[in-house]
Amino acid sequence: MNYISLTDLTPAEVQDLVERARHLKLHPITTDLQGKVIGLLFMNPSLRTLASFQAGVAQLGGNSFVIQPGTGSWALEFEDGAVMDGTAVEHVREAIPVLSRYCDILGIRNFAKQTSLAADLADAEMRRFADLSTKPIINMESASDHPCQALADWMTLDELGIPADGKFVLSWAWHPKPLPYAVPAAALRMAAQRGMEVVVHCPEGFDLPAPLTSAPNVRTSHERAEAMAGAHVLYCKSWCRPDLYGQPDAHGAATAHLRDDWCVDEPWFATAQPDAKFMHCLPVRRNVKVTDQVLDGPRSVVIQQAENRLHVQKSVLLKLAESSK
Amino acid sequence: MNYISLTDLTPAEVQDLVERARHLKLHPITTDLQGKVIGLLFMNPSLRTLASFQAGVAQLGGNSFVIQPGTGSWALEFEDGAVMDGTAVEHVREAIPVLSRYCDILGIRNFAKQTSLAADLADAEMRRFADLSTKPIINMESASDHPCQALADWMTLDELGIPADGKFVLSWAWHPKPLPYAVPAAALRMAAQRGMEVVVHCPEGFDLPAPLTSAPNVRTSHERAEAMAGAHVLYCKSWCRPDLYGQPDAHGAATAHLRDDWCVDEPWFATAQPDAKFMHCLPVRRNVKVTDQVLDGPRSVVIQQAENRLHVQKSVLLKLAESSK
Amino acid sequence: MNYISLTDLTPAEVQDLVERARHLKLHPITTDLQGKVIGLLFMNPSLRTLASFQAGVAQLGGNSFVIQPGTGSWALEFEDGAVMDGTAVEHVREAIPVLSRYCDILGIRNFAKQTSLAADLADAEMRRFADLSTKPIINMESASDHPCQALADWMTLDELGIPADGKFVLSWAWHPKPLPYAVPAAALRMAAQRGMEVVVHCPEGFDLPAPLTSAPNVRTSHERAEAMAGAHVLYCKSWCRPDLYGQPDAHGAATAHLRDDWCVDEPWFATAQPDAKFMHCLPVRRNVKVTDQVLDGPRSVVIQQAENRLHVQKSVLLKLAESSK
Repeated sequence: MNYISLTDLTPAEVQDLVERARHLKLHPITTDLQGKVIGLLFMNPSLRTLASFQAGVAQLGGNSFVIQPGTGSWALEFEDGAVMDGTAVEHVREAIPVLSRYCDILGIRNFAKQTSLAADLADAEMRRFADLSTKPIINMESASDHPCQALADWMTLDELGIPADGKFVLSWAWHPKPLPYAVPAAALRMAAQRGMEVVVHCPEGFDLPAPLTSAPNVRTSHERAEAMAGAHVLYCKSWCRPDLYGQPDAHGAATAHLRDDWCVDEPWFATAQPDAKFMHCLPVRRNVKVTDQVLDGPRSVVIQQAENRLHVQKSVLLKLAESSK
Repeated sequence: MNYISLTDLTPAEVQDLVERARHLKLHPITTDLQGKVIGLLFMNPSLRTLASFQAGVAQLGGNSFVIQPGTGSWALEFEDGAVMDGTAVEHVREAIPVLSRYCDILGIRNFAKQTSLAADLADAEMRRFADLSTKPIINMESASDHPCQALADWMTLDELGIPADGKFVLSWAWHPKPLPYAVPAAALRMAAQRGMEVVVHCPEGFDLPAPLTSAPNVRTSHERAEAMAGAHVLYCKSWCRPDLYGQPDAHGAATAHLRDDWCVDEPWFATAQPDAKFMHCLPVRRNVKVTDQVLDGPRSVVIQQAENRLHVQKSVLLKLAESSK
Repeated sequence: MNYISLTDLTPAEVQDLVERARHLKLHPITTDLQGKVIGLLFMNPSLRTLASFQAGVAQLGGNSFVIQPGTGSWALEFEDGAVMDGTAVEHVREAIPVLSRYCDILGIRNFAKQTSLAADLADAEMRRFADLSTKPIINMESASDHPCQALADWMTLDELGIPADGKFVLSWAWHPKPLPYAVPAAALRMAAQRGMEVVVHCPEGFDLPAPLTSAPNVRTSHERAEAMAGAHVLYCKSWCRPDLYGQPDAHGAATAHLRDDWCVDEPWFATAQPDAKFMHCLPVRRNVKVTDQVLDGPRSVVIQQAENRLHVQKSVLLKLAESSK
């Protein structure tokens, strides 16, 4: 069993994971992972994920190791059939099987390469890592998913008392770089799965690729006041304009004019529920994606979201450890 | 409760910490930190601090994680109100609160930015991190303090039988770069707090900023033979000429002529106590700040100082863990 | 006691280590290293060694820390008498003694500098580190040895039922860079020590330096069919042409024409035992040193070799921990 996407789980399974996370938040120390080793493979940088997985494993009585290719470890090759005479000295076809033999569960972070939209949306690399691993794997953010974040967000929505059929607005924000779809995809699928009314709010041309918005309770709006009307939650994230995927220079030129109007600020909430919440997965660029006023104000629940990463990941680790007995 | 500066402690509290460190040196293994997670956030490189904290936490039965922004983790922003469209992708206003929720005690290393002398001397950033953290913090070297080193040095002086009212010479040495005041400030305040006669020995123009030398038992001397007369300890460290703070090129040009005369060598000890000791916090540039002869000779106690880092830090960890119960 | 080279051990001692590793493969979890700290100092990148040592220490109930000079830790100086006014801020003469005081066993990785062939072949730096350390050290790959890999390979040969007097072919392969002798030296000495018929197969001019091939059961061949005739094992590795040691540009020019003919491929095995095995220490550059066909085919045992690193290293750790009681 693996944990690659929240959508692989039934609603009941999600509720079980959240229940257990809630219990672990109150009683964080156990010995369930005694004698277990959790491998953590980071192809990309991390702060929350690295710290919370190491902390969580320790609180469950286990141990972890961290491998960061390109930072103290070899650069890795991903292409099948590659003639490896460049900078990559090891292929994932060796690295993943080997690392999986040194641990009981393997967490992997591997961002989108942003060269093929179709390949990234299919999350082909993460699925392949699961095939290469002899142990359960956990997706610590992939090309088009971030199921640990999604589960933490679900738990946070529950804690906040946001109704299961409440209104969840996923809004684009300006960002100096074209970002992949992992977090927006994970967030909107989570909210849809939870039964919410999901509105994707973005400038024209930035509609998320069709496979991500196919659920019946997901729609797209380019009108802010309409999108935000009655919203319980504004979930902020930037993403690449789909027709400019893999073209960072063109993307920069095409989005520059959106900068001023697409930084989340208090007036965005004019038509929302009075106590509507601001959510973001972090890290967030202050005064670029959201103003200090909103982020430091009472709407913001970003620290709570981040803390819940710890609890839900422990819940996932326990589930995988039990399944592999 | 935090551990930000040795000067926050009474002499009795310092003695308690050293006593306990002495006990831990003889009986290093305990289970006091079982189930505890210690976060270690390094904004700057480390060898001793990184290794000794991880080793010490483990010997106390606890666990630790390491975050190194810019090396496998996101670059951080420090400025309030910053418009974050540059390389920093996360603000310390998120990073510190989040990390503090993943651990029971948070160690932070954050060197001087060397742009504002006043801000660095006030250690404003470390004090702010303490406000941002929900857990006790340990200063693992800040803009103008290094209290773990100071405590290890205190313990080393005790072990060596250096009288509490002995003579402690803090001497400047040449260095290819302008260094901040963290270690010299910590060392001279420690020696003054211990009751020693403290002489800051440096070239004219290099007198440490006034707030650092205000204790009645601290004075400055530009005459080597006079400064070293009867000294029990020569503590070597380089620091930036205060009027050239934040101007590395000007500093380099203005200090080049001091290189030959300001590398600690055996003749420096001509007027000192016969068995006067050489101290340095490490890392040290051999044959730049001190000759091989002195560093490899019987005066040098640098390895003992470094070893004591382990023991005093364990003592501090236990004190903070108890205070947060 | 240290573990610097397999050749420091008697055949009976090697067999003891392998026996215990075989036991640990079946029963991986113990508490033998409870309260022990293992320091891991990596002067060079690592994937298998870093992960397997951390995992192995954890499975034995111990803890480890990792120091990577130049990546989050200070750059180190190695030369005696150096005037350290360059990038290195700390000398190994301080770093090794200090780190050894923070742990019970110190693992060190330190690749060949490739400036002096004689110094590298003598493994002078690793022997010196052992002198500087107050604790047992483990060679995690040095200038001319890799005893953890050698022991894992021995165990793998045993598991595969390769006869103790079987034929072991160590073959050169083309590589974009001139590589040091650590792995080929360790592999051929291991096979010779095990009693095998060892043939070094390489292009003319690439014969390994004489000290490495002095055992009576080691010879060199430039004829592929003859070298491989009846072979039980082909062990693939690249190494620098000895007369071009330390001259990477000249080496590149002089070896370019060998590229096509010196990538291990299925036809190489035409005269070997029908079920001859392909061995490599990893990382391996696919389709440069070996074709996908061989590496993904039934001859390849590279993952088994890598897994055995974990088990033999645990065996070595236990032996050193017992010897230092």
